[in-house]
Amino acid sequence: MEINDNEITRKGLMFVLSSPSGAGKTSLSRKLLELDKELFLSISYTTRPPRPGEIDGEDYFFVNNDDFAFMQEQNEFLEYAKVFDYYYGTPKKPVKKILDKGRDILFDIDWQGTQQLMNNSKDHLVKVFVLPPSIKELERRLKERKQDEDEIIQKRMSRASDEMSHYAEYDYILVNDDFDKTVKEIISILNAERLKNHRQIKTQKIVKNLRGSL
Amino acid sequence: MEINDNEITRKGLMFVLSSPSGAGKTSLSRKLLELDKELFLSISYTTRPPRPGEIDGEDYFFVNNDDFAFMQEQNEFLEYAKVFDYYYGTPKKPVKKILDKGRDILFDIDWQGTQQLMNNSKDHLVKVFVLPPSIKELERRLKERKQDEDEIIQKRMSRASDEMSHYAEYDYILVNDDFDKTVKEIISILNAERLKNHRQIKTQKIVKNLRGSL
Repeated sequence: MEINDNEITRKGLMFVLSSPSGAGKTSLSRKLLELDKELFLSISYTTRPPRPGEIDGEDYFFVNNDDFAFMQEQNEFLEYAKVFDYYYGTPKKPVKKILDKGRDILFDIDWQGTQQLMNNSKDHLVKVFVLPPSIKELERRLKERKQDEDEIIQKRMSRASDEMSHYAEYDYILVNDDFDKTVKEIISILNAERLKNHRQIKTQKIVKNLRGSL
Repeated sequence: MEINDNEITRKGLMFVLSSPSGAGKTSLSRKLLELDKELFLSISYTTRPPRPGEIDGEDYFFVNNDDFAFMQEQNEFLEYAKVFDYYYGTPKKPVKKILDKGRDILFDIDWQGTQQLMNNSKDHLVKVFVLPPSIKELERRLKERKQDEDEIIQKRMSRASDEMSHYAEYDYILVNDDFDKTVKEIISILNAERLKNHRQIKTQKIVKNLRGSL
């Protein structure tokens, strides 16, 4: 049986990585995108001002309140939420484009965003929750971000607790006590989910062909 | 938080590997058991006579019809089936023993056995279907087994078709066109399934502890 290499072999994944702030999610995401060439990052729109070093169109698309509200009205968000006085939203178009190619998209979003995706795109969704190894480590990691005030850190700690109260809604749960181990675990989850029966377009064709020849 | 290393950290898997005869399942099983120290083989009872080289208690437990019928009556099988005039059955006790330790058990059974397991043990079950790369390859592999008559080979080919008609009942589907690749894929599935939220006993304790400390 001939299959064109350009043909789509499987359905794409919407791969959600959630965690309390400070569990190491950003470093994990970067490493995954570097190692896995079939995975692409969903870049959110936000009304939050950029932190030092953040790049528009790479970390976020930074927009003002009016622009964000306009996109909302136009129904251009797959999900959006307000966190600490700022809005965050996932644009629909890039997600559709990547899924249509049988590739996967990584979402670095919180439990609120995840719940909205569950209502819209259940079939494509794989939800992973990453835990910090301990509270001490969580505090240490949050304090390492020198740009944040104490008050903000306290706010984040309480938000971490809120975030963790939703862990049961995720398909997989990992403890990030060893960065390389956690990366390997997430890669295993990606590879396994890609092999799920209902996502295997090409293999389903092969089995039909085999049966036809017997 | 202290966790005793001997404590059970997760729920065990019942890992089913099914395929048409000749897709390379036996070699795959052997390799998996060699590489993965948390995986143990479920050894079936059968009334079929041993093939040359097969060892009682290792490949199968070879029993006569009366013994098999007695075990059936005593409800000692998790599943059993009749294939080509012979009975095959999976004993309950070793499965329970392994699952109770938070370890995994590998089942080399067909779609009939798999369906029976689905009725009994859904929570633990992970079902993988392995396809041969092509019909030619399937025939070649079946003929390599010199001990079998042509008639048996024909019977097996038709059974392969029957077996493949049930591929949709499996969670994962793989094409065994490259042995090492297929082994890696199955190991990914094992590792991912172990990280499923509802199976993570230890991690669920960690998250409860973290939340309690915040």
